[in-house]
Amino acid sequence: MRIVRTIAQLRKEVAGARARGSEVGMVPTMGALHDGHLSLVHAARADQGFVVMSIFVNPTQFTEAEDLEAYPRQEASDAALAEAAGVDVIFAPTAAEMYPEGFATTVHVGGSITERLEGETRGAAHFDGVATVVSKLLLACMPDRAYFGEKDAQQVLVVSRMVRDLGIPVRIVPCPTSRDEDGLARSSRNARLSEGERARALAIPRALGAAAAALASGECEAEAIREAAGRELAAEDLVAEYLAIVDPDTLDAVERVDAPALLAIAVRVGEVRLIDNAVLTP
Amino acid sequence: MRIVRTIAQLRKEVAGARARGSEVGMVPTMGALHDGHLSLVHAARADQGFVVMSIFVNPTQFTEAEDLEAYPRQEASDAALAEAAGVDVIFAPTAAEMYPEGFATTVHVGGSITERLEGETRGAAHFDGVATVVSKLLLACMPDRAYFGEKDAQQVLVVSRMVRDLGIPVRIVPCPTSRDEDGLARSSRNARLSEGERARALAIPRALGAAAAALASGECEAEAIREAAGRELAAEDLVAEYLAIVDPDTLDAVERVDAPALLAIAVRVGEVRLIDNAVLTP
Repeated sequence: MRIVRTIAQLRKEVAGARARGSEVGMVPTMGALHDGHLSLVHAARADQGFVVMSIFVNPTQFTEAEDLEAYPRQEASDAALAEAAGVDVIFAPTAAEMYPEGFATTVHVGGSITERLEGETRGAAHFDGVATVVSKLLLACMPDRAYFGEKDAQQVLVVSRMVRDLGIPVRIVPCPTSRDEDGLARSSRNARLSEGERARALAIPRALGAAAAALASGECEAEAIREAAGRELAAEDLVAEYLAIVDPDTLDAVERVDAPALLAIAVRVGEVRLIDNAVLTP
Repeated sequence: MRIVRTIAQLRKEVAGARARGSEVGMVPTMGALHDGHLSLVHAARADQGFVVMSIFVNPTQFTEAEDLEAYPRQEASDAALAEAAGVDVIFAPTAAEMYPEGFATTVHVGGSITERLEGETRGAAHFDGVATVVSKLLLACMPDRAYFGEKDAQQVLVVSRMVRDLGIPVRIVPCPTSRDEDGLARSSRNARLSEGERARALAIPRALGAAAAALASGECEAEAIREAAGRELAAEDLVAEYLAIVDPDTLDAVERVDAPALLAIAVRVGEVRLIDNAVLTP
């Protein structure tokens, strides 16, 4: 496995792989790797390509300075995990490589898919940052496929829209949310939870489960299903930033779950902001 | 020469050319071809590539509905001119191919280079439209080089910035403004000038000449040089939308021309909006 720092080096590596007849898969990450990231690498390997992992803590998608500072950075251990999982090249650029002097371009995805949920709570700049950095990463690597976790369901939607709209020749492959044995969705942010906070955070997957159970028991009203989920959060004194049942394509709120709907949750547990979601299928 | 309508067909043509070992040059146009466009094709041919010309009257860069409607469309004669000049493929997509249902993405270049001159007079949406459509055209074709006329100097600046920022792997090749024998910069809009308007429009190249002459005579003050140019316009009763002497990289106004500066003019002659520019070199 090689680690490259510049777009030019990355292109050389990818060109070499293509010259050897390989297809190319990309797993964009912000590092602080956990089994969720590695499941994306496994998916990429299963598709039999040369696997590029990017590690870049993108400053422009953070809307809170403390959150950016607190985001874990651990390149040496990340590299060991990536190599063991079968990554061929890590692309770990500096911020100056990604955003050189005079950088002035933003890729903006408009409409409900960026305005709702994370867009509403983290601000419009968040998805501008995501769409811009992902378009740059994809154009730097030009992979055949790029793998994203469904934990960030809205990100998958925004990136897919951006890729389709601009015509970036890549297939976006959404991969199932990876969970710890206790049900908590894997996230680099989990490392910042105290033991007590982690126990309380389990209310999030319980809330998803309670919603699914309510639906299974015949409840179709979104409000009632939200209340069932909300009770689990309240039991641990957690206040949701949002707890929404929405159309999976538009993210507009739905009143009745008579077609697959997305239940999306954002919660702050202590200082740590966690998100999770599940598709509710009637 | 072939005419293709879809991005998929274009990619097939380009892939075929690359398989034959060709490099690829692209000349993006809005059709209504004149010798200025053809000089871009000649430049592309001189670089020995396979030449793709796009013809697409991009609705999103027009900020006035009448201007969009009045823009000349003449595909059959354009195709004949392009073929004679040596174009290999014309890419002439429909608006629905470029902006399918649900399209929601904008490529925005911020800062002074989009805010000044055309950005100020035509509105911010103009360069959003340009940056978005050019990024789509480049990503559809993935040429080695793309050729743009320096008549649209600000467009060259914005496109170059966008390409550099996003890392689109293409070299932008600016080409000298093509002029009729009387000095008028070639433009598809010239066809809409009456005979009398055309005669008055010659005040624009005369204004550029007067500015250069003032500078050559030792005048360095931008205001005095602007006045020399403005007198030529006034003599034909033309009122400039802007007549600006600016830094060629930032488009910020300069007070003294002690380094190369861009003199940029926008004028309405009757209903027709014309732009032109020249670099003033002390």
